[in-house]
Amino acid sequence: MKPKLLIDESGKRYLALKSELHTHLGVVNIEEKEHGDIVTSHLGKKFRVIRPRIVDICDKMERAGSIVMKKDLGLIVAYTSLGDGDVVVDAGTGSGVLAIYLANIVKPNGRVYTYEIREDHAELAKKNIKLAGLEDYIIVKLKDIREGIDERADVITLDMPDPWEVATHAFDALNYGGFVVAYSPYIEQARKSNIAFKKAGLKDVRTIELLEREIEVSQVGTRPRTRATGHTAYLTFARKY
Amino acid sequence: MKPKLLIDESGKRYLALKSELHTHLGVVNIEEKEHGDIVTSHLGKKFRVIRPRIVDICDKMERAGSIVMKKDLGLIVAYTSLGDGDVVVDAGTGSGVLAIYLANIVKPNGRVYTYEIREDHAELAKKNIKLAGLEDYIIVKLKDIREGIDERADVITLDMPDPWEVATHAFDALNYGGFVVAYSPYIEQARKSNIAFKKAGLKDVRTIELLEREIEVSQVGTRPRTRATGHTAYLTFARKY
Amino acid sequence: MKPKLLIDESGKRYLALKSELHTHLGVVNIEEKEHGDIVTSHLGKKFRVIRPRIVDICDKMERAGSIVMKKDLGLIVAYTSLGDGDVVVDAGTGSGVLAIYLANIVKPNGRVYTYEIREDHAELAKKNIKLAGLEDYIIVKLKDIREGIDERADVITLDMPDPWEVATHAFDALNYGGFVVAYSPYIEQARKSNIAFKKAGLKDVRTIELLEREIEVSQVGTRPRTRATGHTAYLTFARKY
Amino acid sequence: MKPKLLIDESGKRYLALKSELHTHLGVVNIEEKEHGDIVTSHLGKKFRVIRPRIVDICDKMERAGSIVMKKDLGLIVAYTSLGDGDVVVDAGTGSGVLAIYLANIVKPNGRVYTYEIREDHAELAKKNIKLAGLEDYIIVKLKDIREGIDERADVITLDMPDPWEVATHAFDALNYGGFVVAYSPYIEQARKSNIAFKKAGLKDVRTIELLEREIEVSQVGTRPRTRATGHTAYLTFARKY
Repeated sequence: MKPKLLIDESGKRYLALKSELHTHLGVVNIEEKEHGDIVTSHLGKKFRVIRPRIVDICDKMERAGSIVMKKDLGLIVAYTSLGDGDVVVDAGTGSGVLAIYLANIVKPNGRVYTYEIREDHAELAKKNIKLAGLEDYIIVKLKDIREGIDERADVITLDMPDPWEVATHAFDALNYGGFVVAYSPYIEQARKSNIAFKKAGLKDVRTIELLEREIEVSQVGTRPRTRATGHTAYLTFARKY
Repeated sequence: MKPKLLIDESGKRYLALKSELHTHLGVVNIEEKEHGDIVTSHLGKKFRVIRPRIVDICDKMERAGSIVMKKDLGLIVAYTSLGDGDVVVDAGTGSGVLAIYLANIVKPNGRVYTYEIREDHAELAKKNIKLAGLEDYIIVKLKDIREGIDERADVITLDMPDPWEVATHAFDALNYGGFVVAYSPYIEQARKSNIAFKKAGLKDVRTIELLEREIEVSQVGTRPRTRATGHTAYLTFARKY
Repeated sequence: MKPKLLIDESGKRYLALKSELHTHLGVVNIEEKEHGDIVTSHLGKKFRVIRPRIVDICDKMERAGSIVMKKDLGLIVAYTSLGDGDVVVDAGTGSGVLAIYLANIVKPNGRVYTYEIREDHAELAKKNIKLAGLEDYIIVKLKDIREGIDERADVITLDMPDPWEVATHAFDALNYGGFVVAYSPYIEQARKSNIAFKKAGLKDVRTIELLEREIEVSQVGTRPRTRATGHTAYLTFARKY
Repeated sequence: MKPKLLIDESGKRYLALKSELHTHLGVVNIEEKEHGDIVTSHLGKKFRVIRPRIVDICDKMERAGSIVMKKDLGLIVAYTSLGDGDVVVDAGTGSGVLAIYLANIVKPNGRVYTYEIREDHAELAKKNIKLAGLEDYIIVKLKDIREGIDERADVITLDMPDPWEVATHAFDALNYGGFVVAYSPYIEQARKSNIAFKKAGLKDVRTIELLEREIEVSQVGTRPRTRATGHTAYLTFARKY
């Protein structure tokens, strides 16, 4: 069965992998339920059944370490104008979330090759990729990307501690017009990547940071939220031409 | 001929639509040139020939009004986990840049229906869409979206002065699990959209702003650039479920 | 006895108002202790004795509601070039923290007249002002500033829900060259103040927001902190000339 | 004659040092004019005469290099709760703007000792300090602060390329409870200062950056300005106790 997403009346989500779902609001049987249906638990509680989007599946996945936030993930996609048919090389895989988002964009004609050195992460990623139904478009490779890139890529994403070690491999692997991007929490990592990309012959090297603010809209008025995420990472982009 | 991108040694780009390109560095003949080739002008200047990406074509397009910046465009894509097969409804079209970026992601199985009330903008958008080679995936409609949405959509993007007027139509047109997003330069527009989305029965209504900072990496040291874009727009997201 | 500040070896501060201080690290007698001395508790724990600065006293004060953060307080001082001899009118007093900071700057030749409508807040402020030793320079007035300003002022600070109600009084009370500033958490308040200041004949009306980021410096590297305060308030400045 | 500030009807300011002022709106005689008067030029144009505040004088000063912006200057004042009677040590002097702002706050009982290694800057600063009428409170020293600090200080401000070289001197010169702050455009400078302050035995070491956004209030609506200053400097604070 393909996963189904159930949402209760409070907005809480449940990813159902089997026809019977046990929740604190009762047991729900969704065998014959279609996208958009309302289903009632044995305790009389209502749920909307929907076809999960990739964002729903990723939100429910088991994770390994921190994941790339949407603002950063989005900038990677928009900056490179990622689209159908692109070949992406990605490292490290982690729980596979970035690879999954990108594969959902480049499919059906593109592919994501994702490099991971930890076997447990690679296994977790494969499980998550299968859950997302993207196993035909993502190839998980248990290999250290610092030893070389086997594919020709349009976009290379490096979420790893030392992306500068991959600068030359990235240059060699990129198609002309292609982009590499390093995701780095620390400014020293961003700087090293920026310089290494230039040295490797890459062009248009730029380091960018996005800050996200959520605006509260209440009856009293409008204002940015007091609590905020102050920082996730710097993105260092470069291009081959 | 499909457009080719030429890049001179200073990094300047030229979009060539014909086999002969006239530049201030001389005339270049690219008839037989392939992706990655070097071509020399009659003045002896060298150019790299590459297959343009969507970002290259959009950067060279004729524009109508301001366009959605990459950080915002990216957040729309990532927030909704847009991907192959999604149906997008977009208004207003403007020069078509947003529709083009999104179509490049949802193709080949998805479509973008883009609504525009100005005939001149619709014509410009069609020209730009053709340049991007996406005419099979984008349908430009000369229609006021405030009068109704004809399609069922997974994602609705509203870059128009009064997105709140479309809140109920958006609710009706969205598939369950789908997202609507309003792009608004003014906080009052964001507030009105936020409230209208809630009233229309949409859920998870959130208004978000992204700030972009570019980090300068020079021999002296590392620092955010002095000049910055202080604001583009607020994005107000909502979901149907 | 003037208050003394004791700091233990972990950096924790204690404001001592009497010669004997009881802490969880033991009892300390500071009767004969001077600025800079080390004192040992009966449990053998060491404390540094220092003359508290205004920031230390304010950090230890009893508070009423939220207080103006240093970044905002600082901008008020720097924007107006507040200094010795200036007369400040302030409303509402709250716990008196803003009045105390400003009085410490304008003394000995200037004065702060602070308006408060709640008797409990006025009493708390008086207690705090006495603790700070600034009772000769701050006059707490139990009066609604919306009914008029009795003094001629160089700077007027409005930390109240409806500063726009004071725009005309502020114009009348300000010396030429003087500034008024409204502190407003909500953008609607800032907008209303901005417009009211213009209508009242004030000039150079500007609304400003400051965002604060703390940078973490660790052995691993340097990065903005993940947790941040996303917003405090908008400051709307105007000048009379 | 003490400087007078004239403001024409468009808001343009003129600092008059003599009784006759020549402007593009005509010649103005202000010999007998008092604070708040209106004066008319020989071409019939009107000007308001006001007693300049420190901010007016600093805005009209001759400058050497970039100056500390108000947001940063304000944070220094508020963070340290600078006030009457404090002794400040400042380096380097530059055009003297920071020293002038601070002296206006610590006077009449405090002093600012400002160190400068360039004779031309020291001379310019002296001229500016005289213009501001603060020559009794600021002592300009032609000396390299890296060679030692001669005074005992409550606050030390370091706007120089290598503030870390002064960490130990700062520790020795500070009164208990006093603060040192380094102003650094580059993150590497901030990091080095942060680490050096800790090594020198200083406490509560924190590096802070402020971002400023101006909010536009127009008839159409409210929004942050498109153009912004993306960065000025990092402030690294530390305290002795």
